[in-house]
Amino acid sequence: MAVYTEVGDDELREFVALYDIGEVLSCKGIAEGVENSNFLVTTERGNFILTLYEKRVRPADLPFFIALMEHLARHGVACPTPIRGRDGQALRELCGRPAAMVSFLPGMWPHRILPFHCAAVGRTLAALHRAGASFAMSRANDLSVAGWRRLFEACRSRADEVRPGLAEELDRELAELERAWPENLPHGIIHADLFPDNVFFRDREVSGVIDFYFACTDFLAYDLAISLNAWCFEADGSLNITKSRLLIDGYCRARPLAPPELAALPLLARGGALRFILTRLFDWLNRPRGALVRPKDPLEFLRISRFHRQVTSPDGYGIGL
Amino acid sequence: MAVYTEVGDDELREFVALYDIGEVLSCKGIAEGVENSNFLVTTERGNFILTLYEKRVRPADLPFFIALMEHLARHGVACPTPIRGRDGQALRELCGRPAAMVSFLPGMWPHRILPFHCAAVGRTLAALHRAGASFAMSRANDLSVAGWRRLFEACRSRADEVRPGLAEELDRELAELERAWPENLPHGIIHADLFPDNVFFRDREVSGVIDFYFACTDFLAYDLAISLNAWCFEADGSLNITKSRLLIDGYCRARPLAPPELAALPLLARGGALRFILTRLFDWLNRPRGALVRPKDPLEFLRISRFHRQVTSPDGYGIGL
Repeated sequence: MAVYTEVGDDELREFVALYDIGEVLSCKGIAEGVENSNFLVTTERGNFILTLYEKRVRPADLPFFIALMEHLARHGVACPTPIRGRDGQALRELCGRPAAMVSFLPGMWPHRILPFHCAAVGRTLAALHRAGASFAMSRANDLSVAGWRRLFEACRSRADEVRPGLAEELDRELAELERAWPENLPHGIIHADLFPDNVFFRDREVSGVIDFYFACTDFLAYDLAISLNAWCFEADGSLNITKSRLLIDGYCRARPLAPPELAALPLLARGGALRFILTRLFDWLNRPRGALVRPKDPLEFLRISRFHRQVTSPDGYGIGL
Repeated sequence: MAVYTEVGDDELREFVALYDIGEVLSCKGIAEGVENSNFLVTTERGNFILTLYEKRVRPADLPFFIALMEHLARHGVACPTPIRGRDGQALRELCGRPAAMVSFLPGMWPHRILPFHCAAVGRTLAALHRAGASFAMSRANDLSVAGWRRLFEACRSRADEVRPGLAEELDRELAELERAWPENLPHGIIHADLFPDNVFFRDREVSGVIDFYFACTDFLAYDLAISLNAWCFEADGSLNITKSRLLIDGYCRARPLAPPELAALPLLARGGALRFILTRLFDWLNRPRGALVRPKDPLEFLRISRFHRQVTSPDGYGIGL
């Protein structure tokens, strides 16, 4: 839940006048998302989403994100399309922050995940990877294996405040992943944060994928592993093998996994779990006093990490059943 | 900023199906309002506002609020119109809370108050009072003079934590208001919370009045006094006499104030200031740990209260200049 910047009515009216979308009728801050300020803007032409990029997003990365959304939308991925102003620009400034207006996507994200959601997410992720193949820009993933050590060192001394023994467990896991992390898997554009609140559904189909602000260039199968963690585990930390099978099968129908990708899946899933343990742990230990955003539980992904550590082959995810 | 209740997509779909407003396309929690959970729901028929009433609103009062909005909308006041379901009901339950769907109003609330806003608010408030005259229901104002003592006693022992000497100053002011509060002014339906974030503008005209959840039966001039406090003071606590003159003149054009109402205005304005000092002070002292809503500053209205205490006649508000 977050709106960090208040936008005055005069400033908003001037901003919207730069676009060919009619007069602004209404603007409501949206109580979702923890990274940026988002507003649902209604104009004479319909609904739009206005995003003000807060300090977590590096301004230098914004042209990548904007161009990626434009590219994916043009290649059939249902995602927010940046609106260009009369001057041709999609990225400008509002209230001292970088800001962009994007198209509004119908649909709602699923609060209760059912198997059919997982099949649809698998298909959508593969379609996104295929559409990304022709995108010319790239962006290094600073939250992949090379970035975890720094994050861990920033949390190590206080990790046991969250759970006794956590520092040692993460230390061992990190060393193991650094040693065994694959090097030559197919790579390309990945979403890197495809959690349920970033995927809208209408009826039983995906109607939109949002929040591309972690998108980067990395192993495609790592993106699938992140989605596996985000969609296929029950609240008690157990894998729902029906869901994982449907997710992976859905993916493979649109983009078959090569044998080395399949073989690496348990390791990539451990990496995906560690990435979210570390960023959540960092946010947990460094939450500002009086913050209006409640940090997420880092231990949710510890259970998922432990599950993957005892998986010895991709069969553990129900593939080919 | 507030959304207290998360509404699942299945529950929402079932709820919306009870109305003749088409299929739900999207639902976003709105990051405004501190009393209830509000969602902007887009259906095939357009935008609507869904409100879930949280614990601050007494369920027994809801039929009054719903009927009042219906009555006012029917009598030309631009306010949310409750949508009735196929069963004829406007009030039902969602996620264990009372819930209502109301019409979406275009317009934005003014972040920077200019004189023309005050003139328009005066006219709108008088129109609301006139439209309320034919409304059959009534609701006692539990936040008027009879309710302040209880609120003060709940804060007295800790008031000086907020400002040394505050308890004594409020004690004296409360005793004075209890002694001098008028008894026989024209009364009727009042909004009782007509702050800028509850009034939408389009161009230079009021396009909507929202948030009727403090509406009650009380002196009409007391509502004008609350609006005077809410719209006509600058950030430094000084009265902008151009604004107060326009607000009161705008009001009087649609509903002339009787001489006793005019004469009582400074006292009513002191009462209005004390009411917001006390409720804000109570919220400040009793804010829950980790609350997601930042309480408002009680001292803002202390400066306004002091201003009114040195006003000896309504001329102090620029009337008739």
